[in-house]
Amino acid sequence: MPRSLITLTTDFGDHDHFVASMKGVILSLRPGAEIVDITHAIEPYNVQEGGFVLAEAYACFPRKTIHVAIVDPGVGSARRPLLVEAGGHFFVGPDNGVFSMIYAREPKHRVRHVTSEKFFRKAVSRTFHGRDIFAPCAAHLAKPLAPASFGKPIQDYTKLALAEPQRTARRVWTATVLKVDRFGNLITNLHLDQFPDLPTRPFELRVGLERLRRLALTYAETSIGEVFVIAGSTGYFEVAANQGSAARILGCGAGAPVELEVF
Amino acid sequence: MPRSLITLTTDFGDHDHFVASMKGVILSLRPGAEIVDITHAIEPYNVQEGGFVLAEAYACFPRKTIHVAIVDPGVGSARRPLLVEAGGHFFVGPDNGVFSMIYAREPKHRVRHVTSEKFFRKAVSRTFHGRDIFAPCAAHLAKPLAPASFGKPIQDYTKLALAEPQRTARRVWTATVLKVDRFGNLITNLHLDQFPDLPTRPFELRVGLERLRRLALTYAETSIGEVFVIAGSTGYFEVAANQGSAARILGCGAGAPVELEVF
Amino acid sequence: MPRSLITLTTDFGDHDHFVASMKGVILSLRPGAEIVDITHAIEPYNVQEGGFVLAEAYACFPRKTIHVAIVDPGVGSARRPLLVEAGGHFFVGPDNGVFSMIYAREPKHRVRHVTSEKFFRKAVSRTFHGRDIFAPCAAHLAKPLAPASFGKPIQDYTKLALAEPQRTARRVWTATVLKVDRFGNLITNLHLDQFPDLPTRPFELRVGLERLRRLALTYAETSIGEVFVIAGSTGYFEVAANQGSAARILGCGAGAPVELEVF
Repeated sequence: MPRSLITLTTDFGDHDHFVASMKGVILSLRPGAEIVDITHAIEPYNVQEGGFVLAEAYACFPRKTIHVAIVDPGVGSARRPLLVEAGGHFFVGPDNGVFSMIYAREPKHRVRHVTSEKFFRKAVSRTFHGRDIFAPCAAHLAKPLAPASFGKPIQDYTKLALAEPQRTARRVWTATVLKVDRFGNLITNLHLDQFPDLPTRPFELRVGLERLRRLALTYAETSIGEVFVIAGSTGYFEVAANQGSAARILGCGAGAPVELEVF
Repeated sequence: MPRSLITLTTDFGDHDHFVASMKGVILSLRPGAEIVDITHAIEPYNVQEGGFVLAEAYACFPRKTIHVAIVDPGVGSARRPLLVEAGGHFFVGPDNGVFSMIYAREPKHRVRHVTSEKFFRKAVSRTFHGRDIFAPCAAHLAKPLAPASFGKPIQDYTKLALAEPQRTARRVWTATVLKVDRFGNLITNLHLDQFPDLPTRPFELRVGLERLRRLALTYAETSIGEVFVIAGSTGYFEVAANQGSAARILGCGAGAPVELEVF
Repeated sequence: MPRSLITLTTDFGDHDHFVASMKGVILSLRPGAEIVDITHAIEPYNVQEGGFVLAEAYACFPRKTIHVAIVDPGVGSARRPLLVEAGGHFFVGPDNGVFSMIYAREPKHRVRHVTSEKFFRKAVSRTFHGRDIFAPCAAHLAKPLAPASFGKPIQDYTKLALAEPQRTARRVWTATVLKVDRFGNLITNLHLDQFPDLPTRPFELRVGLERLRRLALTYAETSIGEVFVIAGSTGYFEVAANQGSAARILGCGAGAPVELEVF
């Protein structure tokens, strides 16, 4: 399979020319590239949200896919452009921690500082590196070119502290809501890998003013409007409401605290 | 033409990883597939709206296109996955009535219960059959594989009662608003096929507090802000406002009652 | 490179079947065409906004790309369908001024009135020329067919007066906000080409209740929340706020007046 599949994750929205300009640049340099949008609806400047959505999606793509992630409040500053090899995939974006979850999930990763300006667009603007640096680098990588052509490996790349559940008592953890999804589900940072027997044990999950004790295996087994805990499709436990928005019912959003007690 | 064009209609929105995960699965199994989004903005769980938008769009695509529709409040329950052959197209989705309008428009249709789990993703989640069942089935169908490989025909698939105009007096019908479109047009379930001479007869269409007696052939012949009736591009009569939103002007939305009297 | 790249710029939104219907028509007539969305979020009927976003994006695409632009309040009227050759690109859309900025940027342009109805869809509707006229013409052009097959050159096509800064005193210009982007930046019609030394001269830019005297070269050199002027990525000066929305902070939007005084 030729290396020509490129995904885009940005906070650029879909009202402006930003995303299309990047696609035009990619298709000018690498005709025939297949470009897939992961999302452009990341909250402006929210690096962690961008990293999270990308981390949820990348593993579904074929190996050698090139994932471009641009949530870049530091555009125009000295923050470095990166090319990351991890899990058989490539990642291109700014060195601001947007790939922190990738680093955590793919312990064998190599991070390069992209310094080969010959791959940049002529006349790099100070405000749109998506178009002028990251898109052309992705397109050149897709030709394909070897990652080593782009720059040397570095070790001091930025890793954000990932929100991990904190144990506060023998059977109690404080956790947090990572994201609210389209359906109003509260995706917590409690993961099935860390709590593999939660589905079969009594517990209480406290969020907003609710104390939830039910873990459902499917939506279908709950009543319409009921609020419950469920293991989401990527392994995080979620607080969900059957055909309703748990976020609205509980008045909670990203960053809300969650407390888990296992009995 | 190879059978490799796949469309997606879902209520997944564009903020999360859901749609991209499906695309990644498809492109892993069927490299080179061409994927077209119909919409991901179906109101969460609104099976009828999903079926309507798909029914408005599918006939513009080439024969052998594979249309995946996922509005699936019953995900994880016993509701069956389906593969439908109709009008030279293929349809993949849950057996919850989302294809009811397709069945109505394509009387010669064959519906299969997809039972060949070898085409599913390893470890099917209970909450994301779009990624784990429907996307991989569409990709395998696009290889191409014969529909018969997926499961046996069934007869007892779910058909939703479609909202049809009801005749309440000799020249009076009660109808309903199926959908409000981007421009605020109220798309009614009154269709040109059923009322072919409406454009040339006196009539009154009652909706909200308005009594409309004008059927315009084009927007251009009306005044800015005027509310009128027009035959929409797929044959349904619509209540429209020239460069304005009829929905906002009339305070009406999907499900609003409409009464038609023909003189 | 075969001429098979087609972009779409419309006010159709992403909730309805409109965009997908156009894509289906294109892919039926020109299998394998690569279709890129520029945006479908143009404000309904806002011809100038559609023209602006297209003008910002087209030059990033490879030569011979076919750009379809449909913001078409006059659909169904006598306004002519156009095929424009400019800057090595093709443009297809209604003759309502949507290409005015293209004409201004590419002085050598040729405009044809599309009259060859054989390229239209059978049974052209009066309300959806995107599907019935513009999409099929773009697909036929991508086969490729010669532009001359579509109709004869015309000279009396519609050009909208573009909002240009007006000089009101020796060192004072009144200007306007062309668009607010995703990040709340106010894109003015003051352009680096017209004011090349603005980055190095003292000035005052008056917008809303603010008087701005700082032109930043990068976001990174400003403080979070600070409002300042910056040269945007396509050359227009923008009023921006570091990690905030200048539009919200200043209470200004598209069309807001701006005054520039250079000292």
